[in-house]
Amino acid sequence: MEVTFTKELWDEIKSHIEERNTEALAAAFDQMHPTDIAQVFDKLNREDASIAISAIEEEKAAEMITFLDEDVRERMMALLTPKEIAEKVIDNLDSDDAADIISELPEQKQKQVLSEIEDYEQAKDIADLLNYDEDTAGGLMAKELVKVNINSSLIQCVREIRNQAAEIDDLYGIYVIDDQEKLIGILPLKKLLLAPSHAKLDDVINKDVISVTATENREQVAAIMRKYDLVVLPVLDNLGRLLGRITIDDVVDVIREEAEADYRLASGLSESVESDDKIWVLSRARLPWLLIGLCGGIFGSRIIGAYEDQLQIHPEMAFFIPLIAAMGGNAGVQSSAIIVQSLASGSIGEKGLFSRLIKEFSVAAISGVVCSVFLLSYSLLFTDSTSLAMTVGLSLLTVIMFASLLGTFIPLMLNKFKIDPALATGPFITTSNDILGLFVYFSIGRLLYGVF
Amino acid sequence: MEVTFTKELWDEIKSHIEERNTEALAAAFDQMHPTDIAQVFDKLNREDASIAISAIEEEKAAEMITFLDEDVRERMMALLTPKEIAEKVIDNLDSDDAADIISELPEQKQKQVLSEIEDYEQAKDIADLLNYDEDTAGGLMAKELVKVNINSSLIQCVREIRNQAAEIDDLYGIYVIDDQEKLIGILPLKKLLLAPSHAKLDDVINKDVISVTATENREQVAAIMRKYDLVVLPVLDNLGRLLGRITIDDVVDVIREEAEADYRLASGLSESVESDDKIWVLSRARLPWLLIGLCGGIFGSRIIGAYEDQLQIHPEMAFFIPLIAAMGGNAGVQSSAIIVQSLASGSIGEKGLFSRLIKEFSVAAISGVVCSVFLLSYSLLFTDSTSLAMTVGLSLLTVIMFASLLGTFIPLMLNKFKIDPALATGPFITTSNDILGLFVYFSIGRLLYGVF
Repeated sequence: MEVTFTKELWDEIKSHIEERNTEALAAAFDQMHPTDIAQVFDKLNREDASIAISAIEEEKAAEMITFLDEDVRERMMALLTPKEIAEKVIDNLDSDDAADIISELPEQKQKQVLSEIEDYEQAKDIADLLNYDEDTAGGLMAKELVKVNINSSLIQCVREIRNQAAEIDDLYGIYVIDDQEKLIGILPLKKLLLAPSHAKLDDVINKDVISVTATENREQVAAIMRKYDLVVLPVLDNLGRLLGRITIDDVVDVIREEAEADYRLASGLSESVESDDKIWVLSRARLPWLLIGLCGGIFGSRIIGAYEDQLQIHPEMAFFIPLIAAMGGNAGVQSSAIIVQSLASGSIGEKGLFSRLIKEFSVAAISGVVCSVFLLSYSLLFTDSTSLAMTVGLSLLTVIMFASLLGTFIPLMLNKFKIDPALATGPFITTSNDILGLFVYFSIGRLLYGVF
Repeated sequence: MEVTFTKELWDEIKSHIEERNTEALAAAFDQMHPTDIAQVFDKLNREDASIAISAIEEEKAAEMITFLDEDVRERMMALLTPKEIAEKVIDNLDSDDAADIISELPEQKQKQVLSEIEDYEQAKDIADLLNYDEDTAGGLMAKELVKVNINSSLIQCVREIRNQAAEIDDLYGIYVIDDQEKLIGILPLKKLLLAPSHAKLDDVINKDVISVTATENREQVAAIMRKYDLVVLPVLDNLGRLLGRITIDDVVDVIREEAEADYRLASGLSESVESDDKIWVLSRARLPWLLIGLCGGIFGSRIIGAYEDQLQIHPEMAFFIPLIAAMGGNAGVQSSAIIVQSLASGSIGEKGLFSRLIKEFSVAAISGVVCSVFLLSYSLLFTDSTSLAMTVGLSLLTVIMFASLLGTFIPLMLNKFKIDPALATGPFITTSNDILGLFVYFSIGRLLYGVF
C-alpha cells in the first residue's frame, strides 16, 4: 500500500485501458488505496471509466466512489440504474456514506434506490439519516455501532461484537444502554480484553461520556471533538437515546472545509475552487467579488468627483489617495480576521460588545499613532506642503481607527444574527473602507487646508 | 462530564478559591474535563492558581497542563522544581506530551528534569523524542504502543496488552514486528477479540499498513492521515523499524494550525493572535504589515507625484485611482489564494508552470474583459471625457491581467524555493498590485489622452 498517485502510474493505467488489459488493470488497482484510485477516476473520461471500473473489486469500487469529486460521481451515478446503485454501491457502504451518496441523486431516483435495497434495516437506517440537515450532527453520523444492554455479561458483549461488528471497520468501543435505549456508558475494547470475564458491566464501563444531540450544528461537533481529543462521538436524541456515532475522519473534513471557507471569503472567492478546475468555473468564482469591488470603486470615484474643485487647487492631494484607501482596507481586514478566527476557534470569551470595541479602540489607536507619526514625518520632510502633511497624518489615524472598529463590529453583528461572520472579511471590508477612507481624507483636507 | 466552561462555573470556582474551600474546589474539578479546567487556569492569577492546582487529582492536573496556553504553562513550570516537574507532571503524561512540555523549558532545566525521571525507559523515550524537529513526524509521535513479534500466539498478544497497555489510553491495534523490529502489520483489537484463539498471527493481521518515516514533515503527515482517513499512523526509521505512532488528535491540531496560519498571512497578521489577547500583543501582530503597506503607499504616492503635470491638466484622472489600485489588489489576492489553497490540499497536478500561467491568462482575460466593459460603459455614460473612459477601461483590463499572473506566479515560485507560498497573499500582493496599477493607469493615460 505504498503506491500513491504518480505520473508513471497514470501512464501505466492509461495504457492498460487502451489495450483493454483488464487483468493488468485489476492487478494495479489491487495494490492501490480507494482514495488513490479515485484520483485516477477523477481524470478518466466516461468511456475509459466504464472500462476501468469493472477491474476493481466491488467493495473497493464502492468505497472509491465516496472519494470522487462530486461532479465526477454525479456523472457516474447517472449511468447506473437504481438497482445497480443499490446493489453495487450502497450495499457496500456504511450508512453515513450511503446516505451522502443517495442525497446527491435526483429526488425520484433516491426513492427508487431506497426501494431496491434488499436489507430492510439498512434501507430504514439510510432513510432516517436522509431526514437530517447535512450541517448537523445527524447529518454527520453513521448508524453502524455495537450496543449492549447494561445487564449483559462480558461474554455476551463479545458475542454481540461477533453479531453486530462484522460490518464495522473502525470499532473503538461498545455502547452500553438501558432498557429505554438511553446511553449509560462506553466499554472500550481494551477494557473488554483485559477485564476478568466475571466482571459486571456496570463496574468496568466508562460513564463520563461526552455526547451531542442530533440537531447540534457541525461546527459545534467539530469543536467538541477537537477540544476533547475524541475519535468517536455518540449522537443522542432529546431523550438521551442513542441514535448513531460520528467518527473523527468526517470531522477532519469539516474542520478543513470550515477553515477553507473562511480563507476563501477573505480572498474574495465565491465558491470552492482549485487551480485545476475549468476556466469558466474559476472565472465564475471570481467575478462576483470583482464586480462588487468595481461598484465600490465607482462609488469612490464619485466621492473624489465631489471634491474636484479641491483637487484642482491642490492636485498634490491625489498623491496619497491610494495610501489612505489601502491602509483603511488593511487595518479593517486585520480586525475582522482576528474576530472571525476567535469566533471559529470558540476562544472568544463572554465579554460584551462594548468592552470589545473599547479594546479594539486602544489597539487601533496604537497602530494608528505609530503609522501616522511615520507618515507625518515622511511628508513633512519630503513634500512641500504642511497642509498636505497634516491632512495625510490625521486622515491616516482616523481611517485606521474607523476601519478597525468597523472590522470588529461588523463580524460580531453578523455572528449575532447567525450570519457567517467571515462574509465581513476580505473584499467587502476592503471596499467599504476604501470609500470611508476617501471621504475622511477629503473632508479633513477641506478643513485643514484652511488652517495651515 | 456535561460541564463546560460557563460564567456561573467561573464565579463558583473563584468563590471557592477565595474561601480556601479546597473540598468544594476538588468536587468541582472532579466533574470537569482537563481541557475545561485548563480554561479556568488560563484566567487565574499566580496566587489563585497555586491554591487551585492542589485541589486537582494529580494525573488530571498533568493532563490539564498540556491544554494550557503556552505562556500560562511557562509561568507555572517556572514555579516548580525539576523534581516536581518530573514526578508530578512528566510521570503522568504520554511521551509525546512530556517531550513537548520539556522542550519548552530552558535548556539547563530540561537536563535536570530528565535526570529526575525515575523510570529510565521513560527518560530515554523522552530524550529520543527531543531530538526530532517539532515540524516532523518524529516531533509528533509518541513512543507508547503495544508491539508483538510475528511468531507470537494470540494468547501472547493478549498477555502483551496486559503488560504494555496499562499506560495507553487510546489503543486501536497492536503492531506486529519481525526479529529486526521491522513493522510487518497491524492486528486491530476487533480481530483479536473475534479470531479463534489458535489462529496464526500471520493470517489475521492487516499487512497493508500506511506509515511514514520520522523525518517526514508534519503537513505531509496531516495530508496522509486526512487522505486515508487514519486514526493512528506508525512512524518508522529508514530501515523500516517501528519508532512510534502518531494519533489523529495531534494531527487535527496541525490541520487547524496550518489553515489558520494561511488565513492569518492573508489577513496581514504576523503572529497567531486571538481577540482576548493583550492589547500590546494584538498591536505587535498588526504593525509589521501596516508599516509595509504604508511604505507601499508612500511609494505609490511618488509614482502619482511623477505624473503631477498630467493630473494638473486632467484632474478627473484622480477619480479612478482607488478603483484601479483596489481591483489589481482584489484580482491578485484571488489568484494567489487559489494557488495557496491548491498547494495546501495537495490537489495541484503535475502541470508545468507555463501551462498554468496560460490558463490563468485565460481566466484573467475573462474577468478582466467583463469588468472593463462594465467600467467602460459606465464612464462613457456618466463622465464627459472619452479619453478618461478609454484610459480607465484599458487600464482595468491590463491591471487585472497583470495582477492575476503575478498572483499565480509568485506563490508558485515561493513554493519551488521551499518558502511558504501563503507569504505572497494578503497585504503583500495587495500593496505591490496597488503600485503596479498606478503605474499602468498613468502610463496608459499619457498615451491615450493624446489620441482621443
